[in-house]
Amino acid sequence: MQHFTAIENHSKKEIEELIESARGFKKNRFGTALKGKTLIALFFNPSTRTRVSFDLAMHELGGHAIALAPGSSSWGIEVNEGAVMDGEAEEHLKDVTKVLCRYGDALAIRCFPKFKDWKEEKKDAILSNMVKWSDKPVINMETISHPCQALAMMMTLKEKLKGFKGKKMALTWVYHPKPLNTAVANSAGMIASICGMDLAISNPKGYDLDGDYLAMMKGFCEKNGAKFSVSNSMEDALKDADFVYAKSWGPLSQYGNFKPHGNDKFKHWIVDKEKMNKTNNGYFSHCLPMRRNVKATDEVVDSGRSLIYEEAENRLHVQKAVLAKLIGGKK
Amino acid sequence: MQHFTAIENHSKKEIEELIESARGFKKNRFGTALKGKTLIALFFNPSTRTRVSFDLAMHELGGHAIALAPGSSSWGIEVNEGAVMDGEAEEHLKDVTKVLCRYGDALAIRCFPKFKDWKEEKKDAILSNMVKWSDKPVINMETISHPCQALAMMMTLKEKLKGFKGKKMALTWVYHPKPLNTAVANSAGMIASICGMDLAISNPKGYDLDGDYLAMMKGFCEKNGAKFSVSNSMEDALKDADFVYAKSWGPLSQYGNFKPHGNDKFKHWIVDKEKMNKTNNGYFSHCLPMRRNVKATDEVVDSGRSLIYEEAENRLHVQKAVLAKLIGGKK
Amino acid sequence: MQHFTAIENHSKKEIEELIESARGFKKNRFGTALKGKTLIALFFNPSTRTRVSFDLAMHELGGHAIALAPGSSSWGIEVNEGAVMDGEAEEHLKDVTKVLCRYGDALAIRCFPKFKDWKEEKKDAILSNMVKWSDKPVINMETISHPCQALAMMMTLKEKLKGFKGKKMALTWVYHPKPLNTAVANSAGMIASICGMDLAISNPKGYDLDGDYLAMMKGFCEKNGAKFSVSNSMEDALKDADFVYAKSWGPLSQYGNFKPHGNDKFKHWIVDKEKMNKTNNGYFSHCLPMRRNVKATDEVVDSGRSLIYEEAENRLHVQKAVLAKLIGGKK
Repeated sequence: MQHFTAIENHSKKEIEELIESARGFKKNRFGTALKGKTLIALFFNPSTRTRVSFDLAMHELGGHAIALAPGSSSWGIEVNEGAVMDGEAEEHLKDVTKVLCRYGDALAIRCFPKFKDWKEEKKDAILSNMVKWSDKPVINMETISHPCQALAMMMTLKEKLKGFKGKKMALTWVYHPKPLNTAVANSAGMIASICGMDLAISNPKGYDLDGDYLAMMKGFCEKNGAKFSVSNSMEDALKDADFVYAKSWGPLSQYGNFKPHGNDKFKHWIVDKEKMNKTNNGYFSHCLPMRRNVKATDEVVDSGRSLIYEEAENRLHVQKAVLAKLIGGKK
Repeated sequence: MQHFTAIENHSKKEIEELIESARGFKKNRFGTALKGKTLIALFFNPSTRTRVSFDLAMHELGGHAIALAPGSSSWGIEVNEGAVMDGEAEEHLKDVTKVLCRYGDALAIRCFPKFKDWKEEKKDAILSNMVKWSDKPVINMETISHPCQALAMMMTLKEKLKGFKGKKMALTWVYHPKPLNTAVANSAGMIASICGMDLAISNPKGYDLDGDYLAMMKGFCEKNGAKFSVSNSMEDALKDADFVYAKSWGPLSQYGNFKPHGNDKFKHWIVDKEKMNKTNNGYFSHCLPMRRNVKATDEVVDSGRSLIYEEAENRLHVQKAVLAKLIGGKK
Repeated sequence: MQHFTAIENHSKKEIEELIESARGFKKNRFGTALKGKTLIALFFNPSTRTRVSFDLAMHELGGHAIALAPGSSSWGIEVNEGAVMDGEAEEHLKDVTKVLCRYGDALAIRCFPKFKDWKEEKKDAILSNMVKWSDKPVINMETISHPCQALAMMMTLKEKLKGFKGKKMALTWVYHPKPLNTAVANSAGMIASICGMDLAISNPKGYDLDGDYLAMMKGFCEKNGAKFSVSNSMEDALKDADFVYAKSWGPLSQYGNFKPHGNDKFKHWIVDKEKMNKTNNGYFSHCLPMRRNVKATDEVVDSGRSLIYEEAENRLHVQKAVLAKLIGGKK
C-alpha cells in the first residue's frame, strides 16, 4: 500500500485489515507508531472533523501534523505540466509537491470539484498529479471520492452488523438546497460493494452517479454474489435494508449550469421515521455536516439506530490505521 | 467544577484556589498534568493572546491544543433544536459539539455577540447549548462574558495588593470609536465583587451594564460587606481607587442601531495622569488589545503602575489552572 | 547573535558557522536543542514553505511553534510610538510584541512591503520596532530582506561548489507579470558578496536594486577582492557564471504607481537553456514559488543543475541552525 487515494484501489482483504487495525487503535488510543513522522495536510476547502481527526491521529501516535489552507490566503496553483505560467497561478503543483516531500513523511489533500465540468473534474487532476510527483504517500481527504469517510462508515458497520454477506445497504440521495459533491456517495457505494453487501442506490431521475463508478460497484457486487440495483424510489431502496446511508449530490449533467432551487421539487427525498419503518430495523448514517430536518428528521438522526457520531469518531481510528500502514514505524 | 463558562458560577473559594494553582504554574511553567489531553478551541472571532495562551497552556503541561476558526472559512452553524435547516447553516451545533467531544477532552469557544439585539444575545445561545450537548468540559474564551480574562486580572491584583478587603476597584468606561462587547466589564466587575473588593463603576449616561449583571455584583458586594456604586463620573469612581480597570463597551439599548461617531461626545472619557492622580496611588490595567491615547494615555499605560503585560501573561497561568482543574491528571 | 533580521548584520564567519551547524542538522534531523522552547511566528502575508519549515524546525528539535496570521482575520496594528489610535488600528505593535515575549522564547515575522513608497518601506518599520520592543530574539521571515532564504541558498552552494573564492554568481532579474518584493534579491546579493563570491547583477534599465544595498554588496566584494558588476544584459551576467540565481522584482521608482503590463516588454528576460549554455556549466536556482516558463523554462528548472528543491529543503536546516543559535539549549 503506497497511497490512499480511492477505496477501489484496495482489496477486500486490505480494507478488512485496515478496519481491524483501526479497532485496535479504538481500544488503545495512544501509541508510538508515528513517532518522528510528519503529515502535511493541504486544505483547499474548509474542514472541521477531517482537520481535527488527522491532527489527533498523528499526535496520539507520537507524530505531528501541519495543516495548510492554500485556498484561503493565497496564490493559485498550476496543475498542467509544461504550462506557461503567465496567468494567476504563482506556483506549480509539481514544485509544491516536491518541496513538501522534502519536509514531511506523507501528504494529504482536500480539493473539491468546482462543479464546472464533470468530464474534466473526473480526472481529479490535482490528486493524480500530486501522486505522480510525490515520492511520499498521498492521502485523499476528499476530492471526487472520500475513501477515509468510507472506511469510517465500514468500520462502524463492522461494529454493528454480524458480517456483510446478505446485508442490504441503501445508499439514497436526499434533498439539499445546493448541489454537492458526489465523493462520499462514490466511496460509500464502492466500499460496500467491495466488502460484499447488497447495494441498493436510489436517487431522482437525472441524478445518477457517474456511470463508471456505478459499473465498478455493480462489478464488485457480481463478483461477491451480491445484489445491486439503482432505482428512482427511495422506498424501494430502503425496503428491508439493514443500513441506510443518506447523501445529497448535484446532478453531474448539470455541472456548470446549476439552477437556483433546481432541487426543490425533490424536498420529499428526506429520510424520516415512516421510511425507516420499511427497513429491517435498519441503522442510519450520514457523513457530517448534515442539515437536520432537510436530509433526515431529528427523530431518525437522534434515534438509537443512528450511527452518525460513531462514524465520525471512527474517522480518527481508521485514519490512524491508514497512517500507520503507510508511514508507521516498522516499515 | 464541570465547566468554566462564567465567573459568577464559581465561589470565592474556588476562585482563590484557581489563582493559587495559577501562581504555582507561574513558578513552574512546565509539567505533565495535561499529558495525553487535547483541547479543541473554536474561534468564531479573531484572537491573538487567547489563541497563543491556550495553545501554550496545553503544550507546556504535556497536552495538545487544536484551534479551529469556523467563522473565517466556513458554513453557518444552526443553534436551535428542531430547526429545519433549509437556510444558510450547513451544520447543527449539536452535531459539532457531540463529535468534538469524541475527539477532545475539553472544548473552548469564542463567540462574540453580534450587536443586534441584547435581549437575544444575553441568552448566549451558542455557549449554553454547547454546554447542554457536551459531555466534556466547556471553557468560555469570550462570549458575553470573559471569565479567563477576569481570572487573570484578579491573579494580577493578588500579586500586587495585600488582600482585597477594603480595596477599591474603579471599573470605568472609556471612549472607543466603535461599540464593543460588555463581556470583559461584566466578568471584571463580577470577580472583584465576589472576591470582596469595593466596586465603583462609572460610565456615561445610557451606557449602564446589563441590570441583571449589576444586581449580581451589588449582591456580592453586600454579602461581603463591601461598597458598590455606579455613577456617571469617572472622577468619582477613580477617587482613592487602589486599582483602575478601563474598558469600552457599546450601549446595550442601541444594539442593532449603532450610529457612526455616536460615541464621539465622550472622547474625554480617557484615563490620563491627571485622573490617576486622584487615586490611592492606584494600579492601572486594561485587557488587550487597547487603543493607546484613546482609552488611556501612553503616560499611564507605560507607567510603573500599569499592569497590562502582567495581566496578559497571567492569562497563560490561570488557563493552566482551569485546564488542570477540569481535565488534569489526577481526576 | 541576538536577532536574525538581515544577512548584512552577520559576519562571514558567523554565516559559515550557521551553515556548518545546518549541515549537522541535515545529517541528524532530530534533537533536543529546542526542548521547552516556543517560537511565535506572525504571518502578515501568506506562506507555505516558511510556515512548514519553521514549524518542523522547532518540532524536530523538541520545541513548539505557533503560527498566527494577523493579516487575514484581524484588526490593524499601529506601529508609531505615541500615536493617537482613533483610526482603524485596534492594537499597538509595542503591546503585541511585549505580550508575545511573555509567552514565547522567540518571535518571527513576515511582513511584505505594500509597494506604496519605497523610501517609507525601506525603514522596515514593523520589524525594526519589533526588535526595539522585544526582549526575545526576533527572526525575519521576509520583510524587505529575506535572510533565511539567503542562508539556504548559500548552504546549497556550499554543498555544490568547492569554496566561494573566484566563483561567479549571476543574480538576474527575470520577467513576472506583477511587481514583486526586492527582499530575496537584496539578501542573495548580500550573502554572496559577504562570502567572497564574484557578483554580477543584471536587470532592465530602471530596475536597479536600492542603491544602499548595492553599495553594501560592492563594499563586501571589494573587501574580499572579488568582482562586482551591475549591467542591463542578462547575457553578460550569465557569461561564465558558476551559479545563476533568478528573481523578479518591481522597479523601486514606480512604487505606488505600478502600471498593468508595465513589465511586458521584458518578457524575454527568462532563463532558458540557450542562456545557461553561456555559463561555466553553472547551477541554477530560484526561491519558490516560481512561475515556470515565465521566469525560467522547464528545461532549466528540471535539469540536473537546478538546485531549487535542495535550496527549499535547506530552509529547514538553516532555520534550525538559527533557532539553535538564538534560543538553543546550552546558552
